[in-house]
Amino acid sequence: MEHGGDLLSYEDDYSGQLVDFSSNINPLGPPRGLDQMLISSLSSLEMYPDIQYRKLKESLSIYLKCKKENVLVGNGAVEIIDHFIISSKRVILFIPSFSEYEKRAFVHEKIVERISYRKDFTIDIESIEKIIKPKDLLILGNPNNPTGLRIKKDQLIRIYKLIQKKDAYLLLDEAFFEFCPEDYDSIRLFEPYGYQNVGIIRAATKFFALPGIRLGYGCASEEKVKELAQIELPWRVNALGDVAGQFIFKDKDYIKQSKKYIEIEREYVLGALSKIRGVQPFQTDTNYILIQVLLWDEEYIFQWFLKRGLLIRKCSSFLGLPEGYIRVAIKDRKNNKKLIEAFLELSEKGS
Amino acid sequence: MEHGGDLLSYEDDYSGQLVDFSSNINPLGPPRGLDQMLISSLSSLEMYPDIQYRKLKESLSIYLKCKKENVLVGNGAVEIIDHFIISSKRVILFIPSFSEYEKRAFVHEKIVERISYRKDFTIDIESIEKIIKPKDLLILGNPNNPTGLRIKKDQLIRIYKLIQKKDAYLLLDEAFFEFCPEDYDSIRLFEPYGYQNVGIIRAATKFFALPGIRLGYGCASEEKVKELAQIELPWRVNALGDVAGQFIFKDKDYIKQSKKYIEIEREYVLGALSKIRGVQPFQTDTNYILIQVLLWDEEYIFQWFLKRGLLIRKCSSFLGLPEGYIRVAIKDRKNNKKLIEAFLELSEKGS
Repeated sequence: MEHGGDLLSYEDDYSGQLVDFSSNINPLGPPRGLDQMLISSLSSLEMYPDIQYRKLKESLSIYLKCKKENVLVGNGAVEIIDHFIISSKRVILFIPSFSEYEKRAFVHEKIVERISYRKDFTIDIESIEKIIKPKDLLILGNPNNPTGLRIKKDQLIRIYKLIQKKDAYLLLDEAFFEFCPEDYDSIRLFEPYGYQNVGIIRAATKFFALPGIRLGYGCASEEKVKELAQIELPWRVNALGDVAGQFIFKDKDYIKQSKKYIEIEREYVLGALSKIRGVQPFQTDTNYILIQVLLWDEEYIFQWFLKRGLLIRKCSSFLGLPEGYIRVAIKDRKNNKKLIEAFLELSEKGS
Repeated sequence: MEHGGDLLSYEDDYSGQLVDFSSNINPLGPPRGLDQMLISSLSSLEMYPDIQYRKLKESLSIYLKCKKENVLVGNGAVEIIDHFIISSKRVILFIPSFSEYEKRAFVHEKIVERISYRKDFTIDIESIEKIIKPKDLLILGNPNNPTGLRIKKDQLIRIYKLIQKKDAYLLLDEAFFEFCPEDYDSIRLFEPYGYQNVGIIRAATKFFALPGIRLGYGCASEEKVKELAQIELPWRVNALGDVAGQFIFKDKDYIKQSKKYIEIEREYVLGALSKIRGVQPFQTDTNYILIQVLLWDEEYIFQWFLKRGLLIRKCSSFLGLPEGYIRVAIKDRKNNKKLIEAFLELSEKGS
């Protein structure tokens, strides 16, 4: 199973410090003051975390604007996704998407049905209608990884109505939610429906720049939260993930500033890439860009960047994407410039 | 599901700081220098942990004296147990034992067969022989929780030979291993067999006093480690668990001192309890004691201790134990004295 962020596998191939464009983390780093908070909480490691995560769920309910009875927490978003899969009969997923959806379904011996995104990576609702049955779990990345597109609000409502009609379940993986334009918030959107047949998963990993702390969370109906409680491992969020989750969501300035920063850098990188011969960047709503490389093969381009200290994500391991796609994160201006310069150099060299 | 260590559920019932006799943690606390190590590693939270946990496994292979290809790591011992259960067909367990064995089997819809320990909480091998079939997973706490008894070396070998003969699998939950007398080390014991049909699980939780960090580990055949790699969640050990695991096992003085400390306190508490009318402590090899209370019901005795700031573990939630059993951890001398005094007071008051 290939994933981004695997620096250690490649650090021997480059003499300096690798810049990791393969994992999509907020380049501003975690909220200020978190280090001090964690340092003053180190003794929490000597106790079990609260097995019910009461304070953490309280903090999340304020941040997500839902009742604490609707809150789920897990050891990263991927564990919560895993629990939804355990509780399902059949898993419907669109490809290309995060490889763990299918892997977890395989682990739990669930039947998997794959649907392809359209060529422009949008969703054809009819393709869902043809396949969906009662009790099915439909997983949709919103925005999707590696494609970067967010589902439009009216389409999302139409998908949800279909799921409701069929008595299936819609799981939205919104691990990159905060990077997106503020068009709609699915947690607010589905609140009037009491989150019947729908769950929304997010994480501290990407936007709050804490992949090491392993804090995933989400929102579902009270009934579903109780059902998943029968599946969840005890103490699955570690004590410092618990503490961090009581701290980071309060920092409104950090959230606002990060959103603005990514918006500006996204425009910058997309704009620059669009002028480079031989690469085709796709539109994105988030902090990473899927790029079709037209003149070089994936491995060549990967090595090209690696030699320059830049680790990018090869995408041929994503089912449903042919060879010749890469994904790059949007980082700070200095590193984004390095990336663009490496692309330019490649382009000038030709194939 | 009831567990020890749930201080938050009871802290309103007592005005001061509760002393937690319900979770069995090394009273000496974690190894010295760990705080400084973690503080200097806080930036690791901003990256994904190594998805292969190479340095952590290297450190564990030195500590456990096995090859790094034999090492398993997980989000606490309970997650590794869960993975063994997923990979099994049928789960055989002795009762009373840690409630998560059965719960995880239930989550993964495995058939469960329960065998009762003998009245003195030892194992009747014939009862295993009657029930065990190929591919069965037999889980044994060694020492077992809440009973505290360690399997004798020659009996363990006989159980293992039986498991081998039947082509079943023996999973030893040794979360309390380091507290025990140094009679044998199952990781050394089964090394000549290449860990065929046997896995051993341990954790930093109890002996290294780090329940909040969520670091479980274990040892199995290379083949089994590869099989479980197909089941494991990515990044399941958080970055500071990873760092801690590269630090704590080197502290030989701490390990020696903790073992000695627990040995002395175990003798002290057992000796004192044996002289108290109305309670029957069971022999133990580890840092907790199962006690049959003869004159009071479980809830009464629980509240008695709670009023004195001592949180003990009621045991009626353990399948296979009737009412009237409690479990207490062995702590430092000051708190052990408090516990004994509360028992004495109770005993003098009578029923």
